[in-house]
Order: sequence, then C-alpha cells, then structure tokens
Amino acid sequence: MTDRQSFRNAMSHLAGAVNVVTAQGAQGPMGCTVSAACSVTDEPPTLLVCISRASRSHAAFTGSGALCLNVLSAAQQHIAQRFADSSATSAERFALAQWDTLATGSPVLRHALASFDCQITGAMEVGTHTVFTCSVRAVRMHDGEDGLVYFSRAYHRLPVSTAQEA
Amino acid sequence: MTDRQSFRNAMSHLAGAVNVVTAQGAQGPMGCTVSAACSVTDEPPTLLVCISRASRSHAAFTGSGALCLNVLSAAQQHIAQRFADSSATSAERFALAQWDTLATGSPVLRHALASFDCQITGAMEVGTHTVFTCSVRAVRMHDGEDGLVYFSRAYHRLPVSTAQEA
Repeated sequence: MTDRQSFRNAMSHLAGAVNVVTAQGAQGPMGCTVSAACSVTDEPPTLLVCISRASRSHAAFTGSGALCLNVLSAAQQHIAQRFADSSATSAERFALAQWDTLATGSPVLRHALASFDCQITGAMEVGTHTVFTCSVRAVRMHDGEDGLVYFSRAYHRLPVSTAQEA
Repeated sequence: MTDRQSFRNAMSHLAGAVNVVTAQGAQGPMGCTVSAACSVTDEPPTLLVCISRASRSHAAFTGSGALCLNVLSAAQQHIAQRFADSSATSAERFALAQWDTLATGSPVLRHALASFDCQITGAMEVGTHTVFTCSVRAVRMHDGEDGLVYFSRAYHRLPVSTAQEA
C-alpha cells in the first residue's frame, strides 16, 4: 500500500474539470465543489460522482436520490472557491449565481459549461467516500466559454484556442 | 432519460486528464487510452477507472486483477493517440515508450506525469462498461512537465505557468 501523502501528491498531477454538485435538500439547496466525477457509459447515459461522507451536502444527495453535476467555466472559478469554502453557508454559496431546475428539481447552475441533471441509481461506499452512480435525465450546455481545470494544486483556464491537433 | 448524442455533446465539455491504463495480460502487456478515471479516497488510497467491455485490454485487467493508471504529459500525446488507435497492435503500442514495473507487474510508463500501480479490489458493471475500484500499491511521479487534457474534442497543453490564483 502506498502512503496517503504520496497518493495525494501523485493525484495532484491528474488534471480534472471543476464541478459544483447540487441537490435539493430537506432544508433547501445544498452543494459542494467536486473534481472526482467522470462519464461511465452512454448506454444508458450514466456518470459517477465521488462525495465525502463528511460533506454537509452528502445527506441531500442520499435524501433526494438526485443530484446535478454542473461543470464550471473559467468565468465561474469564484463559484468553485465559494462552494469549497467550509465557512460559507448554503445561502452564501447559492447567492453567487442564478439557478434553474430541469428534470429532478436539483439546482442547475445558469451558464455552466454543462449541467447533468441525474437520478442516483447506485451508491457504493469506499473508505471515507460514497461513489454515486447517476442516470442522466436531462442535460444543458453553454458553448463558447473557456474551460476550468484543477491541476498541480491550482486552477487553470483552458482557452479553446490552445487546442492541439488530435 | 436524455439521448445519447446530447449526453456525448455535454460530456465533451468535461475536461479530463489523458491516461494510458495497462496490465500484464496472458499474452503480454495490454493497454488503452482512458479519460474516465478519478480519485475516490486517500483512506485507503483508492481510485476508479471505467473501461469498455469491448476493449481488447479488458480481459487483461480482469485476468491479472491489477492495472496501472499512467497519467500522460503534454509530451506524450502521441502515446495517447497510439493507444486509442484500434488498428495498432499491442506490440506497436508498447514500442512507442519505455516501461518499468513496480508492485503488481503491470507496465509502468517511464516519464509519465504520475503512475498509480493498483490491485483491482472491485468491479461494477454499468451498461457497456466496467467500473474498476483500485487499491493503490505504489506511485511514481515525474515533475516539471506540462499536463495534457482532453476538452471539447481536442487535446490541450496545460503549462504550469497558466496557473491562476486559487
């Protein structure tokens, strides 16, 4: 087994999109910043999100059985930082932006690069985290914005103009 | 349920690191290019990789019970393209670079940004894909290289100098 610090250092080399994952909780909207999310399959459209059981938002996901994965643009970095700030209340987090709903009632971030409104279809406990398997009920896209990734312990802007020949 | 094409279009907005996932198969080393991988928890160090069951490498992962997640640098984009080219044999894929072994015997890409040598501890079938839960046995890092991400259907270089204040 590798040690925790080596694992964390190596994981800082794995670039990831920056997302805010939201749900409608019993006391109102809840959400947190998450980078551990990925596509699983398009038959049927399914994605995964890994959430710490210590997160205040965790109960909203399990309670509502739904979540929305909102992929942030470079212009939304301040939203990522607010939703990652443990001293910020839910009201302070959601006040930063405008929100809509699509299929499940989970908050959908207006002008996100992409939003995936999902029903949770499975939950697997792994150590401190829950891996939620999510069936995608509705999507919304907002084209033409620069991407935002977290890499080497910092945010980076992804201008479309840096695209290299594939 | 959202349709497959809308899901794929929206997923093209989710930036992801570019990885080559390898294992020692019964007939020799096998591997494929994968972007659907993420950290799960550091207690104990665990990650997830999603692999199509149609992939030629799939049997090597299930057969060996191990895999190595190699995170590519910008200088290794040609390796991503070769491992994603279905017309390239395994010999042609592995001939492109130098490989070592660490804990499990899976091929470890020399000069990868980071390599996670893993024992597979769980496999969940979701549609066309298997989600492998992996316990990290050893890691290796190679610092100072630009990152490589796939976003908006193109490769992008992530120079460390584009870091924004977090």
